[in-house]
This record gives sequence, C-alpha cells and structure tokens, in this order.
Amino acid sequence: MENKGLNTLTNRDYFKGDVKIIRKAKPGPVVFIVTNGLGAIEAVIKDSEYNVGDVVYLEGQVNEHKGRTQIEIKTIRKSTMDFDSIMFERSKPVRQTFSISSPRYEKMKDTMVNIATRIRMAILKGQPIMIRHHNDSDGFISGLSIELGCLSFMKSQGIDPKFLLFRSPSKAPFYSSGDVLRDLVLSKRFVEEDNSDMKPLIIVADNGSTPEDALGLNILKTLGYESIVIDHHNPVEIDENGVTSVDKYLVGHLNPYKHGLDSKTSAGQLCYEIARMVSENFDLPEMPAVAGISDRCDVQETEDYISNTGKTREYLGKIGTAIDYISYQLKHDAGKGVIEELFNNYDFVLILNAEVAEGFENQLRCALPYLRSVEINGINFSTIDLEKYTMRFTYPAPGAVLSRIHEFAAKENENLPSLTIGMTEDMFIVRASKPILPVQEIIDNLKAKFPQANVDGGGHEMAGAIRFVSAHKDSLIEEIKAQLKAKNLS
Amino acid sequence: MENKGLNTLTNRDYFKGDVKIIRKAKPGPVVFIVTNGLGAIEAVIKDSEYNVGDVVYLEGQVNEHKGRTQIEIKTIRKSTMDFDSIMFERSKPVRQTFSISSPRYEKMKDTMVNIATRIRMAILKGQPIMIRHHNDSDGFISGLSIELGCLSFMKSQGIDPKFLLFRSPSKAPFYSSGDVLRDLVLSKRFVEEDNSDMKPLIIVADNGSTPEDALGLNILKTLGYESIVIDHHNPVEIDENGVTSVDKYLVGHLNPYKHGLDSKTSAGQLCYEIARMVSENFDLPEMPAVAGISDRCDVQETEDYISNTGKTREYLGKIGTAIDYISYQLKHDAGKGVIEELFNNYDFVLILNAEVAEGFENQLRCALPYLRSVEINGINFSTIDLEKYTMRFTYPAPGAVLSRIHEFAAKENENLPSLTIGMTEDMFIVRASKPILPVQEIIDNLKAKFPQANVDGGGHEMAGAIRFVSAHKDSLIEEIKAQLKAKNLS
Amino acid sequence: MENKGLNTLTNRDYFKGDVKIIRKAKPGPVVFIVTNGLGAIEAVIKDSEYNVGDVVYLEGQVNEHKGRTQIEIKTIRKSTMDFDSIMFERSKPVRQTFSISSPRYEKMKDTMVNIATRIRMAILKGQPIMIRHHNDSDGFISGLSIELGCLSFMKSQGIDPKFLLFRSPSKAPFYSSGDVLRDLVLSKRFVEEDNSDMKPLIIVADNGSTPEDALGLNILKTLGYESIVIDHHNPVEIDENGVTSVDKYLVGHLNPYKHGLDSKTSAGQLCYEIARMVSENFDLPEMPAVAGISDRCDVQETEDYISNTGKTREYLGKIGTAIDYISYQLKHDAGKGVIEELFNNYDFVLILNAEVAEGFENQLRCALPYLRSVEINGINFSTIDLEKYTMRFTYPAPGAVLSRIHEFAAKENENLPSLTIGMTEDMFIVRASKPILPVQEIIDNLKAKFPQANVDGGGHEMAGAIRFVSAHKDSLIEEIKAQLKAKNLS
Repeated sequence: MENKGLNTLTNRDYFKGDVKIIRKAKPGPVVFIVTNGLGAIEAVIKDSEYNVGDVVYLEGQVNEHKGRTQIEIKTIRKSTMDFDSIMFERSKPVRQTFSISSPRYEKMKDTMVNIATRIRMAILKGQPIMIRHHNDSDGFISGLSIELGCLSFMKSQGIDPKFLLFRSPSKAPFYSSGDVLRDLVLSKRFVEEDNSDMKPLIIVADNGSTPEDALGLNILKTLGYESIVIDHHNPVEIDENGVTSVDKYLVGHLNPYKHGLDSKTSAGQLCYEIARMVSENFDLPEMPAVAGISDRCDVQETEDYISNTGKTREYLGKIGTAIDYISYQLKHDAGKGVIEELFNNYDFVLILNAEVAEGFENQLRCALPYLRSVEINGINFSTIDLEKYTMRFTYPAPGAVLSRIHEFAAKENENLPSLTIGMTEDMFIVRASKPILPVQEIIDNLKAKFPQANVDGGGHEMAGAIRFVSAHKDSLIEEIKAQLKAKNLS
Repeated sequence: MENKGLNTLTNRDYFKGDVKIIRKAKPGPVVFIVTNGLGAIEAVIKDSEYNVGDVVYLEGQVNEHKGRTQIEIKTIRKSTMDFDSIMFERSKPVRQTFSISSPRYEKMKDTMVNIATRIRMAILKGQPIMIRHHNDSDGFISGLSIELGCLSFMKSQGIDPKFLLFRSPSKAPFYSSGDVLRDLVLSKRFVEEDNSDMKPLIIVADNGSTPEDALGLNILKTLGYESIVIDHHNPVEIDENGVTSVDKYLVGHLNPYKHGLDSKTSAGQLCYEIARMVSENFDLPEMPAVAGISDRCDVQETEDYISNTGKTREYLGKIGTAIDYISYQLKHDAGKGVIEELFNNYDFVLILNAEVAEGFENQLRCALPYLRSVEINGINFSTIDLEKYTMRFTYPAPGAVLSRIHEFAAKENENLPSLTIGMTEDMFIVRASKPILPVQEIIDNLKAKFPQANVDGGGHEMAGAIRFVSAHKDSLIEEIKAQLKAKNLS
Repeated sequence: MENKGLNTLTNRDYFKGDVKIIRKAKPGPVVFIVTNGLGAIEAVIKDSEYNVGDVVYLEGQVNEHKGRTQIEIKTIRKSTMDFDSIMFERSKPVRQTFSISSPRYEKMKDTMVNIATRIRMAILKGQPIMIRHHNDSDGFISGLSIELGCLSFMKSQGIDPKFLLFRSPSKAPFYSSGDVLRDLVLSKRFVEEDNSDMKPLIIVADNGSTPEDALGLNILKTLGYESIVIDHHNPVEIDENGVTSVDKYLVGHLNPYKHGLDSKTSAGQLCYEIARMVSENFDLPEMPAVAGISDRCDVQETEDYISNTGKTREYLGKIGTAIDYISYQLKHDAGKGVIEELFNNYDFVLILNAEVAEGFENQLRCALPYLRSVEINGINFSTIDLEKYTMRFTYPAPGAVLSRIHEFAAKENENLPSLTIGMTEDMFIVRASKPILPVQEIIDNLKAKFPQANVDGGGHEMAGAIRFVSAHKDSLIEEIKAQLKAKNLS
C-alpha cells in the first residue's frame, strides 16, 4: 500500500509504514489501587462490589501493563485482619533526624515526628491532604516543602496524587473563615469527583496559631475535619503550659512558642524538617535557607542551612525575593510548578530580581521626597502618605516599600532611634529601628482611647500593621505622637 | 511468598495476602495517536513501552471503532527514519496567498509564511499552543482567527484539540509578567493532566512588540518556551534594521513597523491571513474587516476586506462594538463559543449594540455638563474629571466615554484644533483632533519635570494614556497647559 | 416483558422496547444512556451510528456491571413511535399538591405545575439545567431547592447529574448581561466536554422579573435558549393582564404579582414547592421556613412552614443568617455542599451566628456615634456616612449595618416616624419605619431634577437603594430633605 495520509485509511486497509507518536492516552474493568502499608499497586478485576475502605484478601497473577505492575485478581474476599494497627506502625517516619543539629529542634522533635506520622498515615490510607499557607516567601516554602515531601512519599508508595493533594496560599495573613469556606467547597468537590467520602486532612502552614484563626479552625472541627497547624507566629494567647487558643480545634500544633521558644525558627524551616520525615527521599537544602533569610530569622540554624547549600546569603535571598514577586503577581494562585522553577533555574531568579529592584527604585523615587520627619522625645519619627505618594496596584506593595523608606529614614538619622509610619486610608504600617514603642502597645492605647475607631492589627516590637475606621486617621496619628512624647524612654 | 511491599512485586510473582483498598478507579488498552505528517490516527495495542516522541514502525489491521478509524497494532518497532525533515516539509502551508491583494502584505509575506509553518509544525508534532491576545475587538479577532485556523487544521489531521489549544485575553494592554506567570502555571497543568512534557508554543497577538513586553518574553525564553509575536503596535524601540527590543526572546515576530510600515494594518488582519495559511480550509471574511474598522485602520486593505464581505462598514462595525462589550463584561475570560456567535447571529449583535448606545447616552448625559474648555494658544483645550462625573464600573469604560466627549468638544469648536483630557485619580486619557502635542511628547516633558510623579504611559500622536502618582495630578495638568502655551504651533 | 421503569430492570432480565437516547459516551465501546420516560439505563454496544435525540427500538440482555445495570444491545433500529408525547406525559409531576394549604398557592398552581413539568422534561430528555439565583438567603434556598429536587428526580431515574446540572449565585441583584454571558460560556463548555449539543434550560430564581433583567433574557432567547423565571420581586412593568416586560423572552414565568399577589411569598417558598413537584421524594421543610423568615414574609404561609419544622422562628432565622454570611464570604461561588451542611449541623450555624453578632457589634460601635438626626416635617431624619464610619470589605456589609442603625434610630425616637439614609460615595441606602416617602418616589424626583446624576436604583415603600454619579451626592441629599419638608404628611 502506498504511504498516504493516515486519516484517509479506511476499514480493512492494512497499514505498514513509519510514523511518529505524538500522543498516548488510556481510557473498562474495575481497577483498584490497594496498599499493604509498604506500597500501593493496581489490582484489576472484571467486576467487584468492594469499595474504598474495605480490607480484603486478594489472590492473583501479577503482570506488567504499560510499564506499571498490576495484580489480575483471581480471588477477592473480605478480610478480618486488624489493619489499622499495621497501618499506624507503617506511618512512623523512617527518618527521624534533622538536616542540621539544633537544640531548638530537639525540644520540638516529638511534635514534629507526630505530625509527620499523621501525614504519612493520611497518605497510606488514601485521605486527601489540603495545605493552606501564608502568602509570602516563608509561607510558600512551608506549604511547598510539605507538598513535595508528600509527593515523594506517594511516589515511593506508587500512589497517584490526583485528588489527594492540594496546596494554596491564604488570602488574609491568617486562616480566615473565607479561606476555610473555600476549602470546604473544594473538599466537597474532591469527594464528588473522586467517589471518595474521606474528609481531607487540613494542614495550615506559617499561619494558624492566633485567636484570629480560631473561627476557621472551629468550623473545620465542627464539621468533622482534622487540622494541623505548623506556625512560628506569636500565638498571642498562650498559657504557661503552652496551650494556645486554637489547640482545642487541632489534631496537631507545632509552634516554637509552645516550647518556650520564639519566631526565630521560620515556619518554612519547620515544614522542611517535617517534610524530610514524611519522605526519607526528600531533600532540597535551599528551601529552609531561603525561608530563614526571607523571614530574617537570625539564629544559628539559618547560618547552618545556608552553609549546607554551599551558596551565599545574597544568592539565596534573591530566591526569596523572587517568590515574593511571583506571589504578588499570581495573587491567590499556588503557582504550582512555577515556584519550583526558582530552585532549578537561577536565571529566572535574576530576571525577577532585576524587575523588583527597578520597582523599588521607582516607588522610592516617588515617595522619599514626601517623607516627613520630626524629633519627638529623642526619637526620629517619620510619616508618609503611601496612598498619595506611591503607585497603587504596583509591585512592590506598600508594606515592602515602607520597609525601605524606614531604612532610609533610619540611616539619615543614625544618631537617633527611628520609628516610621506609612499611612493609607485605613491602615498604618509601622517599622522601628529599636523596640521603642511596640506595635501591640500602640494598638492597646488606641483601642482604649478610640473605641469607635475599631483599632485592630498586630505585629511585634519593631514592625506591624494597625487597621482602623478611616474617619479617625488624623486623630490616631496625633495620639501616637502623644504616646511617644509621654513615653519614658530613658 | 513472604509479605513484602506491594510496590516491589514483579512480573510473574504470585501474590497472596491481606490488603486495604484505598482507591477505586476505572480506565483499557494503550491508544496511541500517531501521525505521518499527512494526518493522525488512533493506533491500539494491548500494551507498549513506546512513548510520546518516539518514531516507530507500525503494522496492523485498520478497522472502524465508533465511527473513528483505528490501527490494531500487530508489529511495532523503533524506526531510524529522519522524521523531522519530513515533518518540516509537511508543515509548509498549502495556501500561501492572501485573501486580498496588498503591497503591504507582500513585504511581510516571508515572515507570515514562516510563522504559519511554525504553527503547523506545532500541531503536527502534538505541541500545545497557547494564545494570548489584547483585550479588545482587534485583539479578540487576532486570537480567535489563529485559534480557528488551528482548529481547522487539527480537524483535517484528525487531532483532538483538548489540552492542545488554549486562548485567553491579556489583563494589561501588554503581555505582563502576571499574565506570563499565569500562562506558565497553566502550561504546567497541561503537562500534568495530559502526561505530555512538551512545552507549549506561545503566541502573543495584538500585543508583545514593546519594551513593556520584554520582561515577560524574557521569562518565557529563560524557561525554555518558544514565543511568537504578531502585533501592529509601535514597538517604540526599533533599530534601522527593524530589530526591536523583544526580538531576541522570540522565534518569530511579525509587526508592520519591522518592515517600514505602520499600525494601519491591524493585528486581526495579520492573524487572519496567517490563520488561512495554517489551514487552507479556514475562511471567515468578516473577521479582518471588523478588526480593521475597530482599530480605525483607514487603508485600502480594510476597504477591500469590507467589500469581500458584501456588508456595509456600519453593519460590520457593530460586530466590533459587540466584541468590545462582551470583552468588558467577561473581563479576562476568553468568551469561548460566545464571540463566535456574533458572526452567526446578527440579532445578538444588535441587542448588544442597543445596550452600548444607551450606555454611552447615560454616561454622556452625566459628563458633558462638566466638560471645561478653554482656548490656549489657538487650541481648544478641554478637561473633565471622569471619576466624579461618570459612573464607575459601568460600560462603557472611561476611555471609550472620553473619546465620545472629545468628539463632542471638537465639533463644538470646529474652527480650532481640539485636545481633550479625561482625568481620573492617577491617569490622564488624551484625545486630539490633530497632531498638536503628541502623547509621547507630553510624557517626556512631565517625566523630566516631575521625576517623583513616576509618569508613564503611551500612545500615539492623537490618543494615549498617561499614568502618574496621584498626589501630582493638579501640577501635571497645569504643566500640560504650560507646555501647550509654550508650543510653537505656527 | 412489560414496559416498566428502565431503572427497575435487574440482572438476567431481557429487555425489548422503544427508548430515546439521551446521552452517548465514548471512548471504549459506545455507552448510550436511554430513557423510556420511566427511568434511564445504560445500553452498551460495540459501535453505533445512532445519536442523542434518536428514538430507537432496542433488544438485549440486562446484566450488572460495576454495580450498575446495563442492557447489552443485541438489536437496535430506528423507531417511529411518537416518543415526544410519551415523554411529555411522563414529565407531568406525580405530586401536584403543596406541603401547606394556601389560597395564594392555589392561584399560582397551574404555572407551578407547568414549570415543574418543563423541568422534569429537561431531565428526562437529558437537557442540561443551569440555575442562577439571587445572592442572599432566600435566593440560595430558591436555587438550592430546585437543584435538590432535580438531583432527587435524576437519582430516581438513574441519571448521573455530571454536566447536566449547574447552579450559581448572581453577581448583581438582577440577572445581568455579565452573568448571562458567563452562563453562555459555561454552556458552550458543557457542550464541548459532554459531546452533547443540547442547549441548557436556564432557570432564574429570586431574580429575573424586572426590566433590568430584560437584556439578559433577550440575549438568551435570541441565541435559542429557553429560560424560566421564578421570582417574587415587584416586576415594576406589568400590565392589567399580568404580562411583564420579560414574559416575551421566557417559556415560564412565576411571580405572585402576575396573579394579583405581592412579594410576601418568597421565591424560596415557590421554588421549594416546585422542587417537590419535580421530585415526589424531595422534602426539606426547613428550607421554605428559613426563606420566608429571611425575606420577612409575614404571611400565614411562613407561620405554617415554621410550624411544619417543629422548630422556633429564632432557631430557623439563624440558618438564614448563616447562609447570608457564607454567601458574603464565598462571593460568587455556589457553596456547593457547604450550604447543605447548615441544614445538617446546627453547631455550624451557631458558630457563624456568633461571628455575625460580633461583626454587627463592631460596626455599630464605630458607626452609631456618627449618626446625625434631625426632625424634618415631623419625621426623624437620620444620615450617616457609611464609608467613613464603618469598616470596608468587612462583614456585615453596609446595607445590613444600615438596617441595624435604622432600628436604633427609630427606637431612640419612638414618638416619630423615622427615615434613615446611609451614604457611600455613589449610593444611598434607605430604610423607613413607615411608608413616609417611598424609595421610588425619591428616585423619580431626583431623576427629574438631576438628569446629569444618572439616578437609578429600586426598592419598595420602606427600604431601597439609590445609585448616582458621585459628584452630586451633597445636592441629592439636600434635595431629599427638601422633598421631605415639602411632603404633605398629614
């Protein structure tokens, strides 16, 4: 037969010839994925009444099908074995050591192993996992390292992650009820599309420890979901036994503050070590280094992580800057596959850093001429209207710009401690060079004096954000000045 | 047999033991789609190790299955044929002529044939194609004509477009890094869902030629993506050899300016002609006519396109107006299937046009009483605060309203040339009846005098937009007046 | 074998009879879904040219496959039976009574039965159904009850709802052209993914009766879609025969006003009764009770519905509050699976109500000090700037806050009738304790006196919203005061 167009071939033709394959697809019989806790495999039978969750006894020939190995089921019957204890045993992490040695980590080890065990259990029993993380460099690394650890363990077990693993950044700087409700909708859709009615395990990373998170976590518990929080933010409400306001809603809560430590271990570092326990095959040493640099965690651990990479702090810091940029541009998309590229292709990192540098330069050129500074009680107090003097909807965002403005203001007045406030219509962003007037102290004072301003916000000693009802902006800034003046700073 | 990990089972093993089912799915035999460059067909085999990209020798009976023809593979083995040259040969467009005769097109013909060849190649080898286009009538017609040309060629080849063809409008009036990052995420999802790791071919239409596009196109090249730009906007940076600032990132760049021409050939017209080369079966003569009318391309080609349709300019213009309306309402959705209806159902076009007409009437009734005009240096200079005197978030948008206001202002003062500026908080929209003060000249002057205002924007001699930091609005408008006064217009 | 419901066929039965194909799936062998109007079943054949919509005579063995029953087609041939009349007969609701007795409902019964018949017909013939509903508690209950009724009927018929049933809330408080265009895009995608080219039946619930809806419904009719409206809002334009401005675009329109009644029967109640006719197995008595409470429908029917539940008004009202909260948080997502939880898990309801209560408390603490009241013509007239004195983007939204502020203002001045206006930049929200100055009267007066303000909006005697071009806010509020002063209220 002459070699003509393949699409002109008709019934009863006989074809011989060279072709290039440009696509391969597969669309029968019942195919189970079964596990014995040591791995998963496909098992095929013409028809069966057994379902997800059933423990069964199988017999059958094993053969290869499309490079994957399958059991052709000959016998299948209900089993009475106590499978749950076996599964629990097999959920225990194979690797229970850290990638660096750290007395801080040793204090948290039991909690970390327990969380890794719970995650492995979820994977072994086919429970979906939904990860929500903070929308910044440390948060992305937190969520992504857990995701990669799970993928690695799933791969080793022969489990397809489809409908079983989901990650997304939070919209708010906490696990808001809006995000929880969206996660619930998604979890319902998983159930519908995957014919499984197992509720997902929720993992909240670099968020979730504070009273602001309580509503969302309470909703989840009330609806029968299990949640785990891995965070390093100050839980605000925490008793002498390390019990926080959200613990009662959780099946696991890791936070250095619960162990008498502080935020200097980043969530990305904690998640990375847990991910390494979820899968003993997972390692990506740049991740915890970048996380620590991005969150300014100036502790020995960050130094050790940096040194493990063989790269410089500056080199790694640029990866964090690039994550922040992508996070800003993609808004609330997880950037699946794209964030990973930053660890593979440094040219990509450099292009984005050049763009970020230019963006800062533009914003600062516009803003700096309008920075107003005054000495109050021996403090260099500076303010700027960020809405009037920076470009809206343009990277870098007001908070990042204000940090740079503050650095400038502090440098210009090196002999004095500096406090800088960037103002928008209904928010103050605060940066300080020394713990002169902690943000929480400002908030408490304003709340007491202006109940009708609904002052809210958070932060730590030298950085934070204060939100309020817009009408009171001028009175509030005056009150902060008065507070500064009245402060005994000697 | 001892009870070991299921994932360590191998061929010819015989399995007995307890397992827990953790998933139940149903999928069959291997179905390849194969091509010889003259068409594609399904080829079925029980099992095969060959993969996408392999060149193989096939033998087998052809039969009909569900109306589709399949090869039942009897023999399959690796082939050493130089398939790439054959594929390249078969990528060459069958139709290499234009739908109208045009000296302008003749100058660009080689580039157009090359781009059509590259697109056909992508289809023949199963490479996905992602089209991003400007978010207006000409842009939609640009993207849609390429999409329809590809669909027509795929159909002739028996290729299912699922996971292979994607089109969406840009968010910004250029190919922004945000859109690029979203396209990357989408491309990663294609790979995951389709089990193919071929990177898509990116086609940017009615956008992509200017320095603003360089960042995005650089990212794509750095990550190993091939991009093609088909645009007619002034590239701004272009040397005497027609090399632009983005060329180094592209595998193909068509722009009339690169051939000493101007924007008077619309991107929709260029894309339509390329689409006709991609598939010699594709024709939809209304498309280039509407594109040219929408973009006010007053050249002979537009007249010829109009005359090819047998319809009037007014009739066709209403299709463009309807595309703009749908584009506004659907924001950044591609309107798949709905835009097409406008070319099939003129009653749909008329309903939308009636709505648009009423919208303009409302906006103008509100705005016109507040148009302020003054004579400066023999020019009728008019301004209006669009934010105060038009409805927000209501079609038509400020730019379109300002065009009508300008028409009104110009008519009221027919004896003078008119320059009209519509102001929002951080943008001026500029329209002129004559090339009195080109927008780029305004921008250059404002940039020099107000570096802290971060003046930016673009346009041509008689229309454009200027963005700035909001605090400087009043000073900037005064400076424009001064510039107009100082201008030697004799 | 007698021709009984196809879904009652069991293994080893042998089937002979006429059926209509309502779905055809590939790949693998051809799997039809066929119906005889008494149930649907899968029918399998290696290959077939018949398509969706064809009426065929089938013979074949019935057997079980994966728990589902299938006919293995032995004979298939074209049938000449008048299947449409049979289908129409079987579309008639089995249950044609209401869950409560109501003279109001008796007046509307024929229309309700007709709409239920049309919906059953759609399901029997495999036509997709798209439901759009108002974005509040009554609206969600409207849409959800229709959805649940359809799901129940589909289940009884053995029909999989995938690609056949879709529900979403409206973005605007009417069926806007934007939502229509988005529905069209979705409907095109259904067609593409499901290989069916049957246009969906559109059901608009708790929206759709007013001239604002005409554009969207006209678009749908022009493009060949059938739409049904079930609403209780005042149609504004309605003649003495009950014909409204949208009737000509619809295949069914239920609205109490069309029968000389008023909005005191909620759309959720109407939809619930229709849903019970769509499926005689569907009952969820809390739904119409909550709907009536949420929409303040103070008629006997609401009392009867409440009493049917055995719960108190307060208990049920909290479900409505929770729906409103979820609707706010999820914006334009349908909340599939999550809204349903509110009827299953009252703890979930209580958590959300506690959050709502705290939200109101915060907003009122901020706003009440800035409420300005003045007596005009014997009326207590109060205003407040909602933008300055409440928190933006925070639940509860301005309209709900203003209702509470008005309650406070009215109570403080119990001896006078109260009219309260909450102002934003381009909108007044109006609440009155007595029908002093109907919102439509305000709008008509402002429209006449300020044509350039493009005054628009709607409402009834004691509540409504007025939108305008922002520049005129102060003049408009002064004019309302003047109107109040001039009003003869004796």
